[in-house]
Amino acid sequence: MAPKLSAGPLSSQLRLQQLQSLSRKAAGATTTTTSWTHAQQQRWYSAPANNSVPASKRKYVPTSGTYPRGFQVSGTVVGVKPANTTKPDLALLATDAAKPCAAAAVFTKNKFQAAPVTFSRALLQKRANAGLRGVVINSGCANAVTGRGGLADAAAMGHAADAALGAEEGSTIVMSTGVIGQRLPIQKILDNIPKAYEGLGDTHKHWLAAATAICTTDTFPKLISRTFALPSSPGVEYRIAGMTKGAGMIHPNMATLLGMIATDAPVAPDVAPAVLKHAVDRSFHSITIDGDTSTNDTVALLANGAAGGQKVVLPVSGTSAGADADYRAFRDAVTGVATDLAKLVVRDGEGATRFVTIRVAEAASRAAARRVASAIARSPLVKTALYGKDANWGRILCATGYSLVTEPGAPEAEVAEIDPERTNVSFVPTDGSPELKLLVDGEPEQVDEARAAEVLELEDLEILVRLGTGAEEATYWTCDYSHEYM
Amino acid sequence: MAPKLSAGPLSSQLRLQQLQSLSRKAAGATTTTTSWTHAQQQRWYSAPANNSVPASKRKYVPTSGTYPRGFQVSGTVVGVKPANTTKPDLALLATDAAKPCAAAAVFTKNKFQAAPVTFSRALLQKRANAGLRGVVINSGCANAVTGRGGLADAAAMGHAADAALGAEEGSTIVMSTGVIGQRLPIQKILDNIPKAYEGLGDTHKHWLAAATAICTTDTFPKLISRTFALPSSPGVEYRIAGMTKGAGMIHPNMATLLGMIATDAPVAPDVAPAVLKHAVDRSFHSITIDGDTSTNDTVALLANGAAGGQKVVLPVSGTSAGADADYRAFRDAVTGVATDLAKLVVRDGEGATRFVTIRVAEAASRAAARRVASAIARSPLVKTALYGKDANWGRILCATGYSLVTEPGAPEAEVAEIDPERTNVSFVPTDGSPELKLLVDGEPEQVDEARAAEVLELEDLEILVRLGTGAEEATYWTCDYSHEYM
Repeated sequence: MAPKLSAGPLSSQLRLQQLQSLSRKAAGATTTTTSWTHAQQQRWYSAPANNSVPASKRKYVPTSGTYPRGFQVSGTVVGVKPANTTKPDLALLATDAAKPCAAAAVFTKNKFQAAPVTFSRALLQKRANAGLRGVVINSGCANAVTGRGGLADAAAMGHAADAALGAEEGSTIVMSTGVIGQRLPIQKILDNIPKAYEGLGDTHKHWLAAATAICTTDTFPKLISRTFALPSSPGVEYRIAGMTKGAGMIHPNMATLLGMIATDAPVAPDVAPAVLKHAVDRSFHSITIDGDTSTNDTVALLANGAAGGQKVVLPVSGTSAGADADYRAFRDAVTGVATDLAKLVVRDGEGATRFVTIRVAEAASRAAARRVASAIARSPLVKTALYGKDANWGRILCATGYSLVTEPGAPEAEVAEIDPERTNVSFVPTDGSPELKLLVDGEPEQVDEARAAEVLELEDLEILVRLGTGAEEATYWTCDYSHEYM
Repeated sequence: MAPKLSAGPLSSQLRLQQLQSLSRKAAGATTTTTSWTHAQQQRWYSAPANNSVPASKRKYVPTSGTYPRGFQVSGTVVGVKPANTTKPDLALLATDAAKPCAAAAVFTKNKFQAAPVTFSRALLQKRANAGLRGVVINSGCANAVTGRGGLADAAAMGHAADAALGAEEGSTIVMSTGVIGQRLPIQKILDNIPKAYEGLGDTHKHWLAAATAICTTDTFPKLISRTFALPSSPGVEYRIAGMTKGAGMIHPNMATLLGMIATDAPVAPDVAPAVLKHAVDRSFHSITIDGDTSTNDTVALLANGAAGGQKVVLPVSGTSAGADADYRAFRDAVTGVATDLAKLVVRDGEGATRFVTIRVAEAASRAAARRVASAIARSPLVKTALYGKDANWGRILCATGYSLVTEPGAPEAEVAEIDPERTNVSFVPTDGSPELKLLVDGEPEQVDEARAAEVLELEDLEILVRLGTGAEEATYWTCDYSHEYM
């Protein structure tokens, strides 16, 4: 076992008991959901994952890693779903008490925000992105559409983790994922938080257990770790690790995307939200599986500075080029991990058989490029054609053509960003062979059908749309719709 | 046979020959698509419809009708798809030469507009919505992404119809539907326009043949006729008829929606676009099957005034209440036919097993209500749940919650139109039994599961979302996603 965190007052067990008592009261306050949620349970709960990863996905699960210093994690079997007795379903990440974190989170914009979203957002605001000690996440129940009782549960869960870590109340970010409209089995969770604390460690096995604990219908745990450098501290090896769970959950109602990225780089508090926003825009906000945005989506970044070196600060006009270089290097490291995590989510899209990169280039603006890429990525016509291995540029063109138009009924807008006669569509094979042109300057191209069939046989495919109206670009990642999706 | 139209100069055959000669030149101008389109043909063409309507859809095909005076129609077998030798694929609608029409069309906003869209839009502008004589429509080939050659083809087709009708050049609206990126077999079409003219008639059989001719993968022809009254002319029975083809075509690339509505009411030219916009916003723009908007979507309205009576004019402040009443009655008649046609499109959604009405009420604005309804109607999570007969209010709520938020990456907007604690979700059974409440003021409701199962067994279902933030409402119609969709 890895050594326990360096500080944690003995009174934590006592505080936990107080919180548990408070929570029992909260849990008793709401009784309206009983009958309905029982039915949901029968209907929506998938069988607990049996930890066996499909052969085709094993290559995406790392067998070792280099994890950021000063963090410990655990994955604990709580049984949030009563039927689950074997799969970890409570993840805890904690930083050393001497190394509190600069932290930020990007939350769902859905107007129906789950209790842990409301709780964690307020917590980060109150903390002004500084002094965070940990993250606690349960799977199996989203604690969404649960009213005031649910909010009390989220608080109890976070405060129980604070107590276990010996941290000040309000130091732990809370996330939940699972069924909507059902209260957490909060007592069970609170009872197991000391166990989660006891289980903390810093080995690859611990990180993998935590990544497994946040999964719902994911077929494999999604975990990435790597190292990076900051120009101002050339002698220091910084580490960054992240985990995520999928958003393409169709069968049960668990379409939540959660992500957590931790690094031992030293970071000013206001750097965390700026960098995370940049990273999420280019990663988790650039993937689509079913186009839905859940009540619980949350991606958090924690930086504890345990590796030492010069603190990364926000670039301000007039600062030294060195500080800017550090900021950019840090931003790119976080964006790289976030992007690779987001791609793993797409690879695990329910029923997906292919991984598709939609790159829209030569656009008048990044916003326009994004909207075109997003429209193509979301088009059911495109997604079913890809499953059918159909080089159907007509559907790609069609989605491009409506991507920037106004809603039905709204006045027509000029869409100067798209000019049919300048639009080019190609498939870019992932085996490095030359691109296959489908449409050149708005005219259908003679296509080598045998070559098209070969390209469409590959698991990975890039669709490249050149708009010919500018120099900006954006990339989206998506998957096909197969029969299994239904 | 019905009598031929009352005027048609003998020189029409000569002009046809000239046009055919012009068109042959146009057709020769583009050769880039040959190889590719051959492949498309093999891949995308569905087998020609065999005119056998599935038993479950027969109730939607009328066996008689009352059609507007002064119009004649035909459906002719041209063989636009070479394999088609039996299904009518050219529809012609013509008004008596003495009764030219006020006319308007709503076209797709897609930036890739098919040649017939470009042609017909210019024609209506030039005519200022007056003096139109007919509509000619082919199925089997969309004449989209076909460059200048395609535009010449659309013009040749329209002018050939003008010639056959003895009308001034530019009197006939043109529509096409079918595969994209392929030139029309224009010679074949031009050769058959005289036959289409010869076939004109005003019986139910003629109207049904025309409605069949515009179909592609539709499983049944969509035709509606009815009568209405205008307050200022109580003694006159006005007639209105419409036909449409579906937009939910997934397997072949024929996701085009076409519609044509004809009436014998007398209408000022500027009434036609105003009424049609109102009608389409509440009908064809309020349905969704796969969310895609094609290159060819067109809905036209023609009013020839053959029934006589007082002309319907635009309401102007200061006009008599009587004129306003006529306008509203006419607008409602057109909207009613358009709505029922649009619903038929949803009922024929590929693989659809249920017809779902999404009604969003108590909204702060009609625009907000529309966007909420549209988001629910388009959500793959909602659509798959409906197929699974799953009373999944969580997915409905989730779509409601993200319907009005900004795009990923864009700044967050206040969404005052949605307040979770005022949101109510119910299923309204179509058998007249009381609504089944799923969510009341943001709290999950105890649901009678047996009752829910009964309601979800019905072919038709209404989902009612009350936002509780205003008095406006909007309705969308959609279908489920079944396995067959893929």
